[in-house]
Amino acid sequence: MRDSAPRVLVWNEYRHERRDSAVAAIYPQGIHGAIAQGLDVHGLDARTATLDEPEHGLTEAALAQTDVLIWWGHIAHGAVDDAVVERVRLRVLAGMGLIALHSSQDAKIFKRLMGTDCTVHWRDDGEKERLWVVAPAHPIAAGLGPCFELEPEEMYGEPFCIPPPDELIFLSWFQGGDVVRSGCTFTRGLGRIFYFRPGHETFPTYFDGNVRRVLANACRWASPDIEVRKAPANTRRKAIEPIGS
Amino acid sequence: MRDSAPRVLVWNEYRHERRDSAVAAIYPQGIHGAIAQGLDVHGLDARTATLDEPEHGLTEAALAQTDVLIWWGHIAHGAVDDAVVERVRLRVLAGMGLIALHSSQDAKIFKRLMGTDCTVHWRDDGEKERLWVVAPAHPIAAGLGPCFELEPEEMYGEPFCIPPPDELIFLSWFQGGDVVRSGCTFTRGLGRIFYFRPGHETFPTYFDGNVRRVLANACRWASPDIEVRKAPANTRRKAIEPIGS
Amino acid sequence: MRDSAPRVLVWNEYRHERRDSAVAAIYPQGIHGAIAQGLDVHGLDARTATLDEPEHGLTEAALAQTDVLIWWGHIAHGAVDDAVVERVRLRVLAGMGLIALHSSQDAKIFKRLMGTDCTVHWRDDGEKERLWVVAPAHPIAAGLGPCFELEPEEMYGEPFCIPPPDELIFLSWFQGGDVVRSGCTFTRGLGRIFYFRPGHETFPTYFDGNVRRVLANACRWASPDIEVRKAPANTRRKAIEPIGS
Amino acid sequence: MRDSAPRVLVWNEYRHERRDSAVAAIYPQGIHGAIAQGLDVHGLDARTATLDEPEHGLTEAALAQTDVLIWWGHIAHGAVDDAVVERVRLRVLAGMGLIALHSSQDAKIFKRLMGTDCTVHWRDDGEKERLWVVAPAHPIAAGLGPCFELEPEEMYGEPFCIPPPDELIFLSWFQGGDVVRSGCTFTRGLGRIFYFRPGHETFPTYFDGNVRRVLANACRWASPDIEVRKAPANTRRKAIEPIGS
Repeated sequence: MRDSAPRVLVWNEYRHERRDSAVAAIYPQGIHGAIAQGLDVHGLDARTATLDEPEHGLTEAALAQTDVLIWWGHIAHGAVDDAVVERVRLRVLAGMGLIALHSSQDAKIFKRLMGTDCTVHWRDDGEKERLWVVAPAHPIAAGLGPCFELEPEEMYGEPFCIPPPDELIFLSWFQGGDVVRSGCTFTRGLGRIFYFRPGHETFPTYFDGNVRRVLANACRWASPDIEVRKAPANTRRKAIEPIGS
Repeated sequence: MRDSAPRVLVWNEYRHERRDSAVAAIYPQGIHGAIAQGLDVHGLDARTATLDEPEHGLTEAALAQTDVLIWWGHIAHGAVDDAVVERVRLRVLAGMGLIALHSSQDAKIFKRLMGTDCTVHWRDDGEKERLWVVAPAHPIAAGLGPCFELEPEEMYGEPFCIPPPDELIFLSWFQGGDVVRSGCTFTRGLGRIFYFRPGHETFPTYFDGNVRRVLANACRWASPDIEVRKAPANTRRKAIEPIGS
Repeated sequence: MRDSAPRVLVWNEYRHERRDSAVAAIYPQGIHGAIAQGLDVHGLDARTATLDEPEHGLTEAALAQTDVLIWWGHIAHGAVDDAVVERVRLRVLAGMGLIALHSSQDAKIFKRLMGTDCTVHWRDDGEKERLWVVAPAHPIAAGLGPCFELEPEEMYGEPFCIPPPDELIFLSWFQGGDVVRSGCTFTRGLGRIFYFRPGHETFPTYFDGNVRRVLANACRWASPDIEVRKAPANTRRKAIEPIGS
Repeated sequence: MRDSAPRVLVWNEYRHERRDSAVAAIYPQGIHGAIAQGLDVHGLDARTATLDEPEHGLTEAALAQTDVLIWWGHIAHGAVDDAVVERVRLRVLAGMGLIALHSSQDAKIFKRLMGTDCTVHWRDDGEKERLWVVAPAHPIAAGLGPCFELEPEEMYGEPFCIPPPDELIFLSWFQGGDVVRSGCTFTRGLGRIFYFRPGHETFPTYFDGNVRRVLANACRWASPDIEVRKAPANTRRKAIEPIGS
């Protein structure tokens, strides 16, 4: 397995923080800044990129230097260029890890990789969320206790229209009476994907110690064990054994 | 569960048969005709639709009367209209079953629902394929022996770039030395999907008794237990329990 | 698939009801009686068997007439004879369906089939449980709304030490702050298994309309599509193709 | 994740090598010796233990120093003490990794953890096996090409009566016409399990470079990210939130 640290790129829509002073007060360096800072605490170097940069900061060159991409989007999913989405998707198929956060269940890139629309029931009344660890021995849960709380948070409730995940890591309990699969892994091509539910822009979720630990663990887990090259292609293969009777 | 028989629609690209006399000789009623005839043998009524009909024969009205859609495509995947693909995809998310055959691993609709490009290694030298039943108690394998052979067939070999299937039903052995996951189920939204590998246009695969049994079984398995209405949408949900401390 | 109705056998420890008048008041015909009555409402014939019958009512002859076995146990798991457990296990491997209820997560037969000890966190304070449907199109969820409530119920909380289930059907929210995977399917050999959490002996859970619907659905789902004969054995198989160069 | 190297214990029945001079000629240091030597090549320290040592070399003290246990057995499964099997099983539930090799599909410890009898079809005619990589990005497949061959090997063929694996890593093609799932992962409690098919005692399989790479990869993958303590127990948990209306 890889010895070197994963090269992480944190992508953020970065619109709320520039338009809404309440969000800016919580995330003065942007949500991407808070996430990168949390990774730094856990010994991971991370670069950042945002929607309004050229090519959304997701050029071929930028992706070529990325082992794991973290994605946060919410109000501007439609502004993400389809060509960039496809570029990211092909890089995931080729082995890059992807961590989709919170409302990124509705991001083009996540829905394209899942095949479904990943719809969910939601409520932004600000309530208590308690994340229970279902897979205590999974690398993504390393160092956590049996559960941790976030308060307040937005609610996402089942049914959550994702394909059956490969592994279920977290289940969330909400004060208002709902539950949701809040930490799920998927494989697409050679790439490992982790969806993690928390992180509404109006709450300081990405400063939370448990959340930061989860994200650092997830970056290490999603980092490819292979050299990321090209997405697989349909290929003619010659017979190894003689054909015919 | 449903008591009534599933309403099956068999969709075929129907280009090989009209251009290539060798294919026409094997499938004088088209591949769709041979499949529908096989379902009839097993007591299932099936309608058919083809690429060159208006809206590819996949109008809203046609889909509204379809519980299970069987799909065969090969040389004209690009000619399928994106709007029709999206219409079919939303119907699957709403509960319609989908059976993707052979080279339809490369069809827009299948790739959209899987999220990957479903690439595979292939060889059309005409060789023996032996399908082994991995899940002998699965409804799709009902009535089959431990294995069955098709000769000649095209080869598809691993790695087959699909997401990890929910269930693995068949594994294929090929004379030339390859293996592939040749019968796989997936869930996408409320819809059940079955991928079945055999069926090259130059071989009489869809007249084979075992293949016909598999397809009839799969139609019954994929038929929804629910009324198919609309694909799920993101929805606000009120709290059931009181929020706040 | 099978046209005939599944032959269901409802097995109950039947100790609480005979020792504790409070339980007897809730289940005057025993828990097995209440379950069988609920199946009858849904058009399923069910026989019953209890721990203190000869061979616990699970003779070879009784099992030979059983397509689906429902199991409820709690305080007397240790009194179940190992030879009977093994007999039931082999019948499951041969194709019989098994539905394990509530504290039967700790029953010998369930633990033997799972491989783990299926330990869980619990609390019998009597609180509200709300079961959310995670897989709305699954046959076991047919006819249910998005969630249903049981109050009061015992609490079971994650981590629940089961192997990763094949399919996750229900998730439970508990008033006291816990969640659990409360409806899970497994395959073992040719047999289909469903674990369903609710059903503490001091609460009238098995008279609940939604619970009864789930159990009836589960019996139909777990009923084998094959003739149940013998558990598979290690078997020498001759080569089909020539060996050697 | 763990930085330190996993402490590996290679367990071998060690009967064939002492009774059969043909086997001894292939494995003069025993199968366990050849496996340990192969791990050493990949930078992993491994101790060994064998059936005829006191407590089969699997004392509490020995297990307490083991992160990953490799198991090879064949003709003496019945001689393994049930108490030792249970000790190993509880250690796996507590987090120890387990790698079961070849005919260990029939070992008590593997069958106990799977819940099924793990029966398979087999043929020891000595034929070519080709292992195809189905999950090229999985850590267990790191450094391998698309396939590798072993010749001669024993054949194991589907249906292989294991529970559906968490992940399918390898599929084997056999010259005689069979296929089998030959590299499978499972989770049981906090422990990760890998089953790997090759390794008949009459063939020098454990000297093969690809096989050795797989085993080294698997030890690293199966090594726990947590401190291995005790298997989980049923536990009463107090309510976190207020109960009652």
